[in-house]
Amino acid sequence: MLNEHYLSMLSSKDIIFDIFAYATKRRAEIGAENVFDFSLGNPSVPSPSSVQEAVSTILSQTDPVELHSYSPAGGIPFVRKAVAEDLNRRYGSHYGPENIFMTSGAAAALAHALRAVTQPGDTVLTFAPCFSEYQPYVNGAGCRLSVVPPDTDTLQINFEETEKLFTENVACVLINSPNNPSGIVYSEETITRLAALLREKSEEYGHTVYLITDEPYRDIIFEGTGSPFISNYYDHTLMCYSYSKSLSLPGERIGYVAVNPRAESAECIFSLFAQISRETGHNGAPAIWQRVAALCAGQTADLSVYEKNSSILYDALTSYGYSIVRPGGTFYMFPRSPGPDAGAFCRRAMENDLMLVPGDGFGCPGHFRIAYCVPTEMVIRSLPVFQKMIRP
Amino acid sequence: MLNEHYLSMLSSKDIIFDIFAYATKRRAEIGAENVFDFSLGNPSVPSPSSVQEAVSTILSQTDPVELHSYSPAGGIPFVRKAVAEDLNRRYGSHYGPENIFMTSGAAAALAHALRAVTQPGDTVLTFAPCFSEYQPYVNGAGCRLSVVPPDTDTLQINFEETEKLFTENVACVLINSPNNPSGIVYSEETITRLAALLREKSEEYGHTVYLITDEPYRDIIFEGTGSPFISNYYDHTLMCYSYSKSLSLPGERIGYVAVNPRAESAECIFSLFAQISRETGHNGAPAIWQRVAALCAGQTADLSVYEKNSSILYDALTSYGYSIVRPGGTFYMFPRSPGPDAGAFCRRAMENDLMLVPGDGFGCPGHFRIAYCVPTEMVIRSLPVFQKMIRP
Repeated sequence: MLNEHYLSMLSSKDIIFDIFAYATKRRAEIGAENVFDFSLGNPSVPSPSSVQEAVSTILSQTDPVELHSYSPAGGIPFVRKAVAEDLNRRYGSHYGPENIFMTSGAAAALAHALRAVTQPGDTVLTFAPCFSEYQPYVNGAGCRLSVVPPDTDTLQINFEETEKLFTENVACVLINSPNNPSGIVYSEETITRLAALLREKSEEYGHTVYLITDEPYRDIIFEGTGSPFISNYYDHTLMCYSYSKSLSLPGERIGYVAVNPRAESAECIFSLFAQISRETGHNGAPAIWQRVAALCAGQTADLSVYEKNSSILYDALTSYGYSIVRPGGTFYMFPRSPGPDAGAFCRRAMENDLMLVPGDGFGCPGHFRIAYCVPTEMVIRSLPVFQKMIRP
Repeated sequence: MLNEHYLSMLSSKDIIFDIFAYATKRRAEIGAENVFDFSLGNPSVPSPSSVQEAVSTILSQTDPVELHSYSPAGGIPFVRKAVAEDLNRRYGSHYGPENIFMTSGAAAALAHALRAVTQPGDTVLTFAPCFSEYQPYVNGAGCRLSVVPPDTDTLQINFEETEKLFTENVACVLINSPNNPSGIVYSEETITRLAALLREKSEEYGHTVYLITDEPYRDIIFEGTGSPFISNYYDHTLMCYSYSKSLSLPGERIGYVAVNPRAESAECIFSLFAQISRETGHNGAPAIWQRVAALCAGQTADLSVYEKNSSILYDALTSYGYSIVRPGGTFYMFPRSPGPDAGAFCRRAMENDLMLVPGDGFGCPGHFRIAYCVPTEMVIRSLPVFQKMIRP
């Protein structure tokens, strides 16, 4: 009598995992240097040295019983204060420690945010292309995910299609900027227009439509790209963050939800988070990484390789004839596939030991994702394969 | 439009937190040395030095990108292997790495185990006295918790009452031994009888009734107490463990579920765990603490203070006239309250700056919990207050 719902999830294959598994096999067969693996979004740069220094400082200067003890729900008070102050310093926001709920990564942050502002059966609206895990995240909250089709010319929000799908059942809107899989950063114009729409719909339907922002790539923005701090444009925003990419700590599970203090029922939302933690088996973020987050607030790993890789790939691929909306951040790029069947293109690429992910799982067929969080040297050696692949 | 279910949870006050908050206030008013706080189950002994050494070794000897990278679902393979081998060495079990799913503590382990072997609407059976958080854990899986009344003479399982509450809707049975709040370790006789009952009921109802064991206190067993390894008595067992108490790391969120390889559909259960992680926002246990668990497998902090405190309290309190079933492990004790209203007794104790938790929240009125994970010196100084309190 195993759980039927989770059993049903087993039948939908995880294509990214399959590609990665094939890449692993090929690395063993032909050598790692001959496999161009752009399948996974695993950071390729080390944490800044300040992270290791922070761990050493924390271990040597904190009473071990206190250090490893249970955190209060929401996290260690001084950590939440440090996170709030860093955000306020950088973005002119007005968070207090009472608005910052520390979580084990962005996945946990989203699990809390989604459950707090929805009822089971509600609709959560998001925009293609979008992260493929949004479906299980939203299912887990008992809600229905509605995906607005993409504007493939800009990969910004397609507002015309949004109007069609926006109904009274929409409890919250979920966005991801800088975006996985496209690398696109929503422009100030997009954010302003979205905020206006949310205010309009909240009024029309007589209930606040919350905005949940998934921002693990917030600190990977390329030169010349504006990066509006979304919460400053719409009061009712729950911002989900992870240190996975900025500090290269994806395996350590540390992030937070920041509730805009001007959001409707901000204080109550925070107290709901603690109840959500109880039911979902989340019991706080790892104590040592909370303390590291406080000591390293505002710092990042050396993220410059991502921008370098992005430029090399964009310049080369567009010169070969690929059509690409230039990324403004992250370590992803989302070109159009040469033919309409991105799956077929990616299979052909696999046969050439070039691992790419078709856009279908991101709600955007006819495109493929390149995760260029790899050494620049691999990017350069992969270029002839990309060039070869554009010929049918 | 905040979530109504989680809003409803806010109205049921967390009495343990209230007592702890009062204790904190009193510490500020009259000095920490004058407040006898037995309210919280936070370990009072430091992690063994091997934990800090393991962290140093891991940080200095592992490539930082690899160290902090995403773990595969279920955890790092060599960690799962080390955990399995340590269990097999100590308990003669037959776990492989494919049976060990690393989680962020026992709460997460239970979240996975409960969801895997139930359908929403099923009944989960447990035995009073039981951990007060079982209600939200079971609610979170969409199931109904059925609590078998206690056998207050022994605090072992009350099998007569169990028969009455065991129905076809029972998908799994949840036990906690060594037990919070009683400190009781289920005897081999209890385990054998429970296993026989589960086999009988599985046959009668035509479906396997799984056993979920919550065992964070497994390594805190007092001299002379047998501690049968429960999974060896019943094949269909999912064992949930945490390093919170054995290595004094409650804030770091590290534990696991071990699926008995002979359990029905053991392999499938493991694959369901990965799907459950996706929906609940669990995305693996913290990488560094997984590695520490592997390096420190089978080790514990110096846990002897708990047994020492237990003996002092038991001997003194019984000499004053308290009725107590002697604990076999943990750092809890669960005496009968002098009058039937344990809440009134605990309030009177609070007025004397002695912080105790009434048994009602643990499904066992007329008792109170003493969490003696405190310095021995505090235990000794608290004795006159216990003596005074037994007089009406």
